[in-house]
Amino acid sequence: MDVRGYIDQHAPEFFGALKQWLAIPSISADPGRHGDVRRSAEWLAGHLRNTGFPVAEIWETGTGQAAGMPAVFAHWPAADPAAPVVLVYGHHDVQPVEPVDEWDSPPFEPAERDGKLLARGASDDKGQVLFHALGVRACLAAGGRAAPPVTLKLLIEGEEESGSPHFAELLRSQRDRLDCDVIVVTDTSMWAADVPSMCVGMRGVIDAQIDLTGPERDLHSGSFGGAVPNPLHVLADLLAGLHDADGRIALRGFYDNVAPLSEQERGLLSLLPFDEQAWLADAGHSGAAAGEAGFSTLERIWARPTAEINGMWGGHTGPGGKTIIPRDAHAKLSFRLVARQEPADVAAALREYVAERTPPGIKATVTIGGPGVRPCSSPVDAPAVLAARRALQRAFGRAVLFTREGGSGPEADLADILAAPLVFVGVGLDEDCIHAPNEKVDMSLLLKGAEAVAYLWDELAEAAGELAAAAGKLVAAP
Amino acid sequence: MDVRGYIDQHAPEFFGALKQWLAIPSISADPGRHGDVRRSAEWLAGHLRNTGFPVAEIWETGTGQAAGMPAVFAHWPAADPAAPVVLVYGHHDVQPVEPVDEWDSPPFEPAERDGKLLARGASDDKGQVLFHALGVRACLAAGGRAAPPVTLKLLIEGEEESGSPHFAELLRSQRDRLDCDVIVVTDTSMWAADVPSMCVGMRGVIDAQIDLTGPERDLHSGSFGGAVPNPLHVLADLLAGLHDADGRIALRGFYDNVAPLSEQERGLLSLLPFDEQAWLADAGHSGAAAGEAGFSTLERIWARPTAEINGMWGGHTGPGGKTIIPRDAHAKLSFRLVARQEPADVAAALREYVAERTPPGIKATVTIGGPGVRPCSSPVDAPAVLAARRALQRAFGRAVLFTREGGSGPEADLADILAAPLVFVGVGLDEDCIHAPNEKVDMSLLLKGAEAVAYLWDELAEAAGELAAAAGKLVAAP
Repeated sequence: MDVRGYIDQHAPEFFGALKQWLAIPSISADPGRHGDVRRSAEWLAGHLRNTGFPVAEIWETGTGQAAGMPAVFAHWPAADPAAPVVLVYGHHDVQPVEPVDEWDSPPFEPAERDGKLLARGASDDKGQVLFHALGVRACLAAGGRAAPPVTLKLLIEGEEESGSPHFAELLRSQRDRLDCDVIVVTDTSMWAADVPSMCVGMRGVIDAQIDLTGPERDLHSGSFGGAVPNPLHVLADLLAGLHDADGRIALRGFYDNVAPLSEQERGLLSLLPFDEQAWLADAGHSGAAAGEAGFSTLERIWARPTAEINGMWGGHTGPGGKTIIPRDAHAKLSFRLVARQEPADVAAALREYVAERTPPGIKATVTIGGPGVRPCSSPVDAPAVLAARRALQRAFGRAVLFTREGGSGPEADLADILAAPLVFVGVGLDEDCIHAPNEKVDMSLLLKGAEAVAYLWDELAEAAGELAAAAGKLVAAP
Repeated sequence: MDVRGYIDQHAPEFFGALKQWLAIPSISADPGRHGDVRRSAEWLAGHLRNTGFPVAEIWETGTGQAAGMPAVFAHWPAADPAAPVVLVYGHHDVQPVEPVDEWDSPPFEPAERDGKLLARGASDDKGQVLFHALGVRACLAAGGRAAPPVTLKLLIEGEEESGSPHFAELLRSQRDRLDCDVIVVTDTSMWAADVPSMCVGMRGVIDAQIDLTGPERDLHSGSFGGAVPNPLHVLADLLAGLHDADGRIALRGFYDNVAPLSEQERGLLSLLPFDEQAWLADAGHSGAAAGEAGFSTLERIWARPTAEINGMWGGHTGPGGKTIIPRDAHAKLSFRLVARQEPADVAAALREYVAERTPPGIKATVTIGGPGVRPCSSPVDAPAVLAARRALQRAFGRAVLFTREGGSGPEADLADILAAPLVFVGVGLDEDCIHAPNEKVDMSLLLKGAEAVAYLWDELAEAAGELAAAAGKLVAAP
């Protein structure tokens, strides 16, 4: 029986299992649901054992007061000990469901409608995690084998929707057992059901708050206006100066580690059937797209760094007027990062920028909101990316394009700590309403996902030599 | 008996009367004190009748639901019907007294200490209004006359501390009875007890709110950041662009009606013993003074127009980060105006500026906070100003300098509606703590004020020809 035949035959069983899992409200952000997150982990470990994984364990995260939600680890060695080792990453926790009354059916009572499965977590990320169980069985059945052609490891975390607070620590402490040659991330979306695509990069982020204080108290603008600096003016100047006339960010050295997008990738991005007007309408924006000169909208949101003011306040904000020079002014901002930009470098450049542009008599404080998230990306011609593209093309029967995503989770930690290349294989769609009411997933796409990974293990096994060479090149690079 | 002799002899009686008046808590902003504002008006009218004014009336303001607090009008014709007519302006209402526990003695139980009289209204403005009653008696006694050498009119309003909401209407409706050749405003301060000075100008003001709206909802900055305009960025650009590198305001035509400060007045201002470091320390500002290039600090706060942001808000302002492009952004700002700047012109220029600099897709609304206040000023060589300067110099026995004030009340309405020049004769001090706890007045300065106005009526009578010529010139001017 071939891969597709196996999958079609076992689809009812697959969806039956998925519905069981989706009925568990594993909302990691809700302390009242932490028991359900644990039940979700136990359900998955049991399902993976039934699938055939020789190892399927619950991994606790954090300790004591700082205890976190459990992850699931599973391991199925290839028959050939020299075969590539692949780590699949996903998560079994889900987003909160408020506002509940906007759901057409209860979020934890999975419902089928017009080929879609509706439930919280259907697309993000339980549906996409579970197709790996179906995929590996299809791979074995089609090949008549007892073990997969690559050594498969799964690490499915339980805190992704809460910012993965213990994930990097878990990766470091389990570094040896997680050792791998390729990381397959299954938590992304495709361009469209009829335009299969692979994500090849995610922007990082760092956020900061700028606090300016001027006079010791609010001053009467009649008595002092025009002769002492106004913290709100200083803030407006600082924020207005963050971009030059071309929309480029004015922090010193900001672009030093921004590798130019390759002509090959730009060409591939331009093949995507992007309807800019529809995208703008979706954003509720009535003007034209606008941003850094010389780049398309998709390049701007996926592959170029940004600086955005997220909030700003100071002085009198209530009804009516109040003629004051306020004593302080504040802004929250965030930077999206790409390529090899380091959050810490951007934070340092921001501190320098603010210090240089703050006039005497105004005290400026820059507070960085945590370590930030590093960007990650894979070259479109990396052996693992090409193998995944071939697998997806076999499953979909058509050319697979490349996309990126504007934000990211813990993917860069995976790549950095485990020192392995990332490949993104996901079959979600923008229309899945993840993080919103009525989350759903296209059932036929989940089966395509299972089919694609069934091919992927063979593709990666066949590419073992190129993978090893690429890894060698990486190590030898300066 | 000379003027000074009369004043010294009647000083105890004067302060006794003032203490009676100060005991009436005429807080116009407090609806619970409106009966006291009326009592205050009645007390003053009675006192002026006792002083000898043939006419001393209560004038009601507003009507019906919009009824306001009463003003007092008094009238004492000169013997010579051709003598100049002088209108004295002041107010009998007072500021609120909160926080009461910061007062050293109860605000409406006047107390003498070290030559100061402490009470709410002692300086602003009851003490300064009442010295006119003493001054006119001294003028009559010294001249052995039954009527003052000029026709004296007093208009003492009861809503100045509430923004004079009915004052312009009152001036218009009583235009004929208020007809005058000179307006003497007695509601200002001097440089210092040993540096007598006269105010010759007050800045006007207009305030506005800018509201920007962008996308229909807050957008995820990972998905949209870098490709649609962020209302907070647009606001920062608009506000940063309000001033050029020299601190000049960038609205089109903003300076068209700003007459240059005369070299004579700049020279006189520079004679003031201004301790800039002490002034900055009082402002709680730790840096150097800063503002429009080419002007001194006193020129900047008194005689140059300004634009100040008074408040600004938008997006996420709570704890932590939120990676959004916010849907809206807001700022409140106010402009101080000088010379012949019209609030309505500045409002129009602001609307034009905002419209020109707002990119497509962002909707901008500019809301003007009322008609604003027009600036007012008197040339330092105007006949009425020179007469008042001579009177003050006689009272103080030393040269009188010129100052201005950064903000203003209804003075421009007086000058415009009554079509007469303004003269400012006030003996308050910055240290009087007006509008604050422990308001006080220097008792010897109140007597100097009485002395100065006793001389002033003679000086103005003698300058009748110059006053008429100046008024003629004014009428004949283009």
